[in-house]
Amino acid sequence: MSTIDLNADLGEGLGMWRMGDDDALLGVVTSANVATGFHAGDPLIMRTTCEKAASEGVTVGAHVAYRDLHGFGRRAMDIAPDELTADVLYQVSALEGIARAAGTEVGYCKPHGGLYNTIAKDPAQARATAEALAAFRPGLAVLGLPGTPWQEAAEAAGLRFVAEAFADRAYTPEGQLVSRREPGAVLHDPVAITERCVAMATGHPIEDVEGNPLRLTPSSICVHGDTPGAVEIARAVRQGLEDAGATLRSFA
Amino acid sequence: MSTIDLNADLGEGLGMWRMGDDDALLGVVTSANVATGFHAGDPLIMRTTCEKAASEGVTVGAHVAYRDLHGFGRRAMDIAPDELTADVLYQVSALEGIARAAGTEVGYCKPHGGLYNTIAKDPAQARATAEALAAFRPGLAVLGLPGTPWQEAAEAAGLRFVAEAFADRAYTPEGQLVSRREPGAVLHDPVAITERCVAMATGHPIEDVEGNPLRLTPSSICVHGDTPGAVEIARAVRQGLEDAGATLRSFA
Amino acid sequence: MSTIDLNADLGEGLGMWRMGDDDALLGVVTSANVATGFHAGDPLIMRTTCEKAASEGVTVGAHVAYRDLHGFGRRAMDIAPDELTADVLYQVSALEGIARAAGTEVGYCKPHGGLYNTIAKDPAQARATAEALAAFRPGLAVLGLPGTPWQEAAEAAGLRFVAEAFADRAYTPEGQLVSRREPGAVLHDPVAITERCVAMATGHPIEDVEGNPLRLTPSSICVHGDTPGAVEIARAVRQGLEDAGATLRSFA
Amino acid sequence: MSTIDLNADLGEGLGMWRMGDDDALLGVVTSANVATGFHAGDPLIMRTTCEKAASEGVTVGAHVAYRDLHGFGRRAMDIAPDELTADVLYQVSALEGIARAAGTEVGYCKPHGGLYNTIAKDPAQARATAEALAAFRPGLAVLGLPGTPWQEAAEAAGLRFVAEAFADRAYTPEGQLVSRREPGAVLHDPVAITERCVAMATGHPIEDVEGNPLRLTPSSICVHGDTPGAVEIARAVRQGLEDAGATLRSFA
Repeated sequence: MSTIDLNADLGEGLGMWRMGDDDALLGVVTSANVATGFHAGDPLIMRTTCEKAASEGVTVGAHVAYRDLHGFGRRAMDIAPDELTADVLYQVSALEGIARAAGTEVGYCKPHGGLYNTIAKDPAQARATAEALAAFRPGLAVLGLPGTPWQEAAEAAGLRFVAEAFADRAYTPEGQLVSRREPGAVLHDPVAITERCVAMATGHPIEDVEGNPLRLTPSSICVHGDTPGAVEIARAVRQGLEDAGATLRSFA
Repeated sequence: MSTIDLNADLGEGLGMWRMGDDDALLGVVTSANVATGFHAGDPLIMRTTCEKAASEGVTVGAHVAYRDLHGFGRRAMDIAPDELTADVLYQVSALEGIARAAGTEVGYCKPHGGLYNTIAKDPAQARATAEALAAFRPGLAVLGLPGTPWQEAAEAAGLRFVAEAFADRAYTPEGQLVSRREPGAVLHDPVAITERCVAMATGHPIEDVEGNPLRLTPSSICVHGDTPGAVEIARAVRQGLEDAGATLRSFA
Repeated sequence: MSTIDLNADLGEGLGMWRMGDDDALLGVVTSANVATGFHAGDPLIMRTTCEKAASEGVTVGAHVAYRDLHGFGRRAMDIAPDELTADVLYQVSALEGIARAAGTEVGYCKPHGGLYNTIAKDPAQARATAEALAAFRPGLAVLGLPGTPWQEAAEAAGLRFVAEAFADRAYTPEGQLVSRREPGAVLHDPVAITERCVAMATGHPIEDVEGNPLRLTPSSICVHGDTPGAVEIARAVRQGLEDAGATLRSFA
Repeated sequence: MSTIDLNADLGEGLGMWRMGDDDALLGVVTSANVATGFHAGDPLIMRTTCEKAASEGVTVGAHVAYRDLHGFGRRAMDIAPDELTADVLYQVSALEGIARAAGTEVGYCKPHGGLYNTIAKDPAQARATAEALAAFRPGLAVLGLPGTPWQEAAEAAGLRFVAEAFADRAYTPEGQLVSRREPGAVLHDPVAITERCVAMATGHPIEDVEGNPLRLTPSSICVHGDTPGAVEIARAVRQGLEDAGATLRSFA
């Protein structure tokens, strides 16, 4: 019987601002990517999010990012490797202390937004990120796109690379994400999204953007919760996976 | 034979900016108050400072502060207690991870500037700060002014309160600091400063601002290094203490 | 026939975050307090808000604040007067340039949150704020609570002080706001709120918190839009004022 | 007789931090690139710098930058064009208000660091920057490298493009800057630097990095002041230009 993890971004408010429905998502996912203050998330929101995750049995992950509140961490930045290493170590360590005070700990790391995209292409930033996480804890689990400089750097640093796929994104025949600028890059139909998640979790191929079969074997599937519709889709995905007999469990 | 600690603020640069002569001070002090990014200090400076402190055998302390780069953490702020607790926990945890990667650890905490002054008067912020540090590590050593709400809150939270005195500040007959706005609040003569440090370290009274004897028994003396003259004074204090037979050693 | 202005806070998002229903409020108010980037509001949101205000014929005001994104500008801060003057001048000037590019201009200033409350009590910060605005434009209109150091400082600096009242707040017999920590400080009934706004706009007394008549004569009434219910109340207030024959018009 | 402008970066401190010797530079240059708060410079430093520039008869320019205090604005950032336009308009407008309060005005704009380099290559960011400045003031003078997308965008937007050269940088045969990563990219000899500045100001060729003659005809030469040696070089350049009969005068 197959086992799969569901992850989502949580704790992405700042001060008075809120983003997404964290309470709803915590009833759906098995892993929570908790913002660590550089793109979103302040220390109090981090603490509250860790406490809720702990009480729901959801694993806490460090959602580390570029220092960019105004751009929500989505803008690529040509930061020097030693600065990036220090920035990532700072963030994951801050979350670790907060998670421990909340009765849990950092179980994994998932880089966010612009950093996520950059380390999927840029070996220097990928190595700088991996170095920070290996210094934080040897063998830490990290999420990312398989077949990228990030996977290579993570494994070279002795980290445990965990492949993820996106519930609602179209894939090229090569297994890469179709750019958001292309038509059809994002799926919206809950039934179709759920079907492809079940396929990925049970070892069956999905359809790539050209209609041909593509086999992805993620250990974790990323769902979203930043709109009411997104939460409904996340719930449908979970229900579909359970109905198909999959076990939902954190990889950490 | 008496034992005393010397502490100073280090790592107070930000990005391209520098403040003080860290290398010189690391040859003088036994405890380094390392800025944790909220009033000064960025992750890379924190890492470099921890590495230097580790190689010099100087104990690393968390110099936690209000979030206020533009005011260097010196402006009082009426932050809510739960926000302050989370902010302090975030900072000390971030430094712990960086210190460990540098081969050392956080040995104590000294609140900075506006926070230091506020918790010497305000029980609510004092308790909020103490709660964060007790959550970080039960029994952690903390520096502060004795006889204040900060001492009370720290001890109530199970922390180890360590009294400090300032090498170059005048004291009232009640053992409080003379306000910087008063004439004579800050001493400038290296000989006089050294003499009073030796007196404090060896159990003898100093002269208060009115010329009467005042007995202070700090476990740590704070020196400065933000001007060339300040470094010279710090060196004179250390030499004077050693000549008087005092052992310089971290309290942590 | 009486004339009254309605003002509300707008443009209080940041990057990806949003706050309140600006589009709805722009159909209700005659003056928009536009956040200038220190407590909320980024340059692009400022521009968009100014463009919408210009197209709706709503006057733009500078909602200047302490530099405090994490506390939404609500935390009191003991900033030095010369720093405060420079901070306020920076913000109002930045908005002026953006407003002009949007085809309008800064018509007035309303200090926000912690600054609003502090200058109602602290003459030094009140003078520092007034000095900045007089340097920006002699005779500029400014909103505030009458009978405070802020009114005094504003008038001494040659600014045009405009008294405002709050639609949904209880008042003491002396005409001061009842602290939010007291029971009954905030009114929630749309009918009661509208009635008191009509009374204030037409020269009739309202009931103070003790049930006695209190005559307030504001030139502007502040309404809120940060919850769906708040927008409904704002609409009810406007309708009530129009039904009572009052002319809604900006004071600027 | 030839006329030339000397420009330098000023006001690059932040809060307690300082950078460079502004007082010395103000006795040397004719144009001051004043940091506008995004990479360096806070409102009080901006005001002090404008006041000094005004009293020395030095023209004030807006040194606009990416929002990046930790990277000193030197890190390239893939900011969206509409956000960049708003950010630049915000900064130049803020400085204009501060400059006017100091008895002067913004006479030109010079983008800083990472933005300077990006708009020399990227037409989209160049257009976004130019759009902001044209909205601020039609025909505003802007400094930059000639023959770049920045010159093209600036002129297309109706701005007055002013070519600058760097006193201490080596040039390729094509008139481009030699990358700082290459050996010989930065000149250090005050005599050689002065000679090439005199040559550029009087219409004579300099030697490119390969030793061949290269004719540059800048209207402004950029000097530095961030080290004691740099100030000495700047003084030598000015003296050399005066000895050669050149008139030092702002282009604005």
